[in-house]
Amino acid sequence: MENFTFCTPTEFIFGRGTQKEAGSALARRGASRVMIVYGSDRIERNGLLNEITDSLTGAGIQYVKFGGIKPNPTAASVYEGIEVARREKIDFFLAVGGGSPIDAAKGMALGTIYPGDFWDFYVGKAKPHAALPIGVVLTIPAAGSEGSGNSVITNEETHQKISVRYPGMLRPAFAIMNPELTMSLPFDQTAFGVVDMMAHIYERYFSNTPDTQLVDAYSEAILRDVMDQALTLRLDSDNYAARADVMWAGTLAHNGLCGVGKVEDWASHRLEHEISAFYDVAHGAGLAVIVPAWMEFCARRNPDKLWRFAINVMSVDPAGKDTDEIIDEGISNLKNFYHDLGLTTNLRTLVGSEPDIEKMVASLHRNVGDTLGNYVPLSMDDCREIYRIALEAE
Amino acid sequence: MENFTFCTPTEFIFGRGTQKEAGSALARRGASRVMIVYGSDRIERNGLLNEITDSLTGAGIQYVKFGGIKPNPTAASVYEGIEVARREKIDFFLAVGGGSPIDAAKGMALGTIYPGDFWDFYVGKAKPHAALPIGVVLTIPAAGSEGSGNSVITNEETHQKISVRYPGMLRPAFAIMNPELTMSLPFDQTAFGVVDMMAHIYERYFSNTPDTQLVDAYSEAILRDVMDQALTLRLDSDNYAARADVMWAGTLAHNGLCGVGKVEDWASHRLEHEISAFYDVAHGAGLAVIVPAWMEFCARRNPDKLWRFAINVMSVDPAGKDTDEIIDEGISNLKNFYHDLGLTTNLRTLVGSEPDIEKMVASLHRNVGDTLGNYVPLSMDDCREIYRIALEAE
Repeated sequence: MENFTFCTPTEFIFGRGTQKEAGSALARRGASRVMIVYGSDRIERNGLLNEITDSLTGAGIQYVKFGGIKPNPTAASVYEGIEVARREKIDFFLAVGGGSPIDAAKGMALGTIYPGDFWDFYVGKAKPHAALPIGVVLTIPAAGSEGSGNSVITNEETHQKISVRYPGMLRPAFAIMNPELTMSLPFDQTAFGVVDMMAHIYERYFSNTPDTQLVDAYSEAILRDVMDQALTLRLDSDNYAARADVMWAGTLAHNGLCGVGKVEDWASHRLEHEISAFYDVAHGAGLAVIVPAWMEFCARRNPDKLWRFAINVMSVDPAGKDTDEIIDEGISNLKNFYHDLGLTTNLRTLVGSEPDIEKMVASLHRNVGDTLGNYVPLSMDDCREIYRIALEAE
Repeated sequence: MENFTFCTPTEFIFGRGTQKEAGSALARRGASRVMIVYGSDRIERNGLLNEITDSLTGAGIQYVKFGGIKPNPTAASVYEGIEVARREKIDFFLAVGGGSPIDAAKGMALGTIYPGDFWDFYVGKAKPHAALPIGVVLTIPAAGSEGSGNSVITNEETHQKISVRYPGMLRPAFAIMNPELTMSLPFDQTAFGVVDMMAHIYERYFSNTPDTQLVDAYSEAILRDVMDQALTLRLDSDNYAARADVMWAGTLAHNGLCGVGKVEDWASHRLEHEISAFYDVAHGAGLAVIVPAWMEFCARRNPDKLWRFAINVMSVDPAGKDTDEIIDEGISNLKNFYHDLGLTTNLRTLVGSEPDIEKMVASLHRNVGDTLGNYVPLSMDDCREIYRIALEAE
C-alpha cells in the first residue's frame, strides 16, 4: 500500500424527501443569495424545482434560477453564469441534476470572484485561491462530482475538454441525495450510470500496488452489489432499495475510498473519451465497449488482478480451470452482464458505422502522450489494438 | 434503508513516515501555539515525540508538551490541560496516541475557550458553540476517535464516565496514521483493538433496518479482512500490510460508513462497559466475552442477520445445515477466532474470580434504563441472562 491522504468533507444528506432540506442546509452555511444551476426543464415540469425554491424561500434565502446547462457543459455557459452571478451578487451556488450542472456550477464558483478569465484555471494559466461555496441536489448518480473537487468543462471555441481538480475549493459543502429523484431516469441512463460507476472502481482496482487487500475487498463488495441492484432495476425501476444502493455506490466509487493507497489506471476512461468525442454516444455506453476490450488486452499480459476479479466479482468457480480460462470466463460474464442491461459491447454496433480508429488514436496521442495507464502501460499501438478488439467483440 | 447524513471532514494522512508531516499539517491550518497531548513516556523513549517536535519546529510552530494522560482519561487531567492551554495561549491541540489522549484533547479543546466548567458540556448543563481545533497522530488503532466527533471522559469525583458527541466541533481537522507506529504494540493490545473495531461494525451490522445490502456487503468485506490480518499479525507483528489494513479498518469501522441508513444496536458495548467498570480488564477483552454471548442469546430470537453473518463473515458452508446449525457454527467460529488471538470467551476466566452479575445488572439499569439495544431489545433480565451465558461459555 502506498501512502495516501483521504478527505471527504462534503455532508451527504441522503434519503426520501431530502430535497426539502436544501433551504436549511444553505441557511446553516450562511447563504443569502443563491444561484440554482440546472439543466433541462424536466425539473421544472416534475415539480422538483418548485420544491427546492419553496424550501429556500422558507429558509429566508433569495435565489436566481439558471437553467439550460447541457451535457458536456460549455465554457460559454459558465461565462454566462458568472455574469449573472456577479450582477445578482450571488454568494452560494446550488447545482440540481447530474455531473453537468455540478461541474458548470464549479466553474462559476471559481470565476465569479476572480477578476480575470475563469478558463485560465482550466488551461493552467492561473491557480485559484478561493471559490464561492457549492451545494448539490443530485438527480443522476455516477458522475461522483457531488463529492469531488473536480470539474470538466468543454470550450467549444478552442476545441478543448479539460478536467481540473481543486479539492480544497470545489468539493461541494453538501450534497442532497434522494434516490426517489432517480426513479424517473430511463433505464438506459441508469445502465450508463451503473457502467460508469463500476468503471470508476475498476480504474482503481486494477493496480499493481501490492498489499491492498482491504481496499480490494470492499471495492469488490460494492461492485457485486451494484450489479445485483442494476438487474433489479431493469425489472423494477421504482425499487427504492436498489436506487438507494446505486446512488450511494456512485459516490463511494468516485470519492477516493476505493483508491486509497493505490496507483490508479484510468486507461479505459481515456480510451472511451475518444469514442464519445467523435461519435454521439453516452460515456457509459462507450465504457461498456472499452472495458471488456481493455481486459482482454491485459488478460495474458498481467493476469493477477483479472484472475481475482473473475472469481471475486464475476463469480467464476475456479475449480478445474486454469488461470486463462478463469479470466476469460470472468470477462465473458461481465459482457453478459452488460448485454443483460441492454448494452452492446461491440464498437461498430455502438457507433452505428465503421469507426475511424486512426483518428481516435491520433487524438488520444495528442491528449495523453506516448503511453497510457499503469496496470498494463499502453503504447499507442496497444491502444489501437484495444479499439480493434472492441471492433470484433461479441 | 433509513435516511441519513454522512460527513467525515477529517483529512487522513496515511502511511510510512507521515508523523513528520505534523508540522506542515498544522501550519496549513494556521496553528501557531500547539499543545501536544499524550499518554505514557513511551513516545518520549522511542523517539516519536522528538520527530513530531522537530517537525513542528521546522514549520515555525511553538509547542507545549502535556503528557501523562491515562487510559480512561479523567476530568481532572482535562482541567489541568485547560489551565496550561489558557496560560500558554494555545490555539491548536495535537493529540498523540490512541483514544485516551485524543478524547482528553477534545475536552480541553472545548474547555479552553469556554469561561465556565467544561464538564457542563458532558453532563448536558451547557451546549458548546465552538472548540479549538485538534489534530491527531494515531499510534493505537480501533478507538475511532481520530475521525469522530465523540469524546469519553471519566469524572472520578462524581463517578461518571460520559460520552459526548459534537461532530461539528470535535472531529479532528487531520489525523496522521502511520501503521509503522503500531508495530511496537504488544500482541494482546493489537488483539483487543481488533476485537473492538469488529464490534464497532457488529453494532451497526446487526440491525433490523431492511434493504441495507450495500452497507452490509462492504461491512462484511472489512470484517473478513480484519480477521485475516489479525491472524497474520499474531505470527508477524511487523507486517506492514497487515498493520495498515487493521489501522484503516479501525477508522472505517467507526466513522459512520458502516452504519449509514441503519438503526444501530450498541447493546454489546453497554454490556461490556459494566465489566470493565467493575473489573480491571481491557474493553476489547470484555467484548470478546460479551459479543458471542450476546449472539447466542439472539440466535433463536432474531436469526436473520446472524445467519447471514455466519455464512458471509464466518465462512460457514450452509450446505446440508439448517438455520440453527449455521448460526451456531458461525458463533463457534467467531469464538475460535478469539481463542486464536489468545483471548478467552469465558467471563469467569476473564475477570479471574466469580463476577458479581447482580451488581453489573444494577449498574447497567442505572446507566441505560429498562431496555437496551435494537436488534433484540433487551430487558434487564435478558442482560442478566447474557452475562450468565458468558459465565458458562467455553
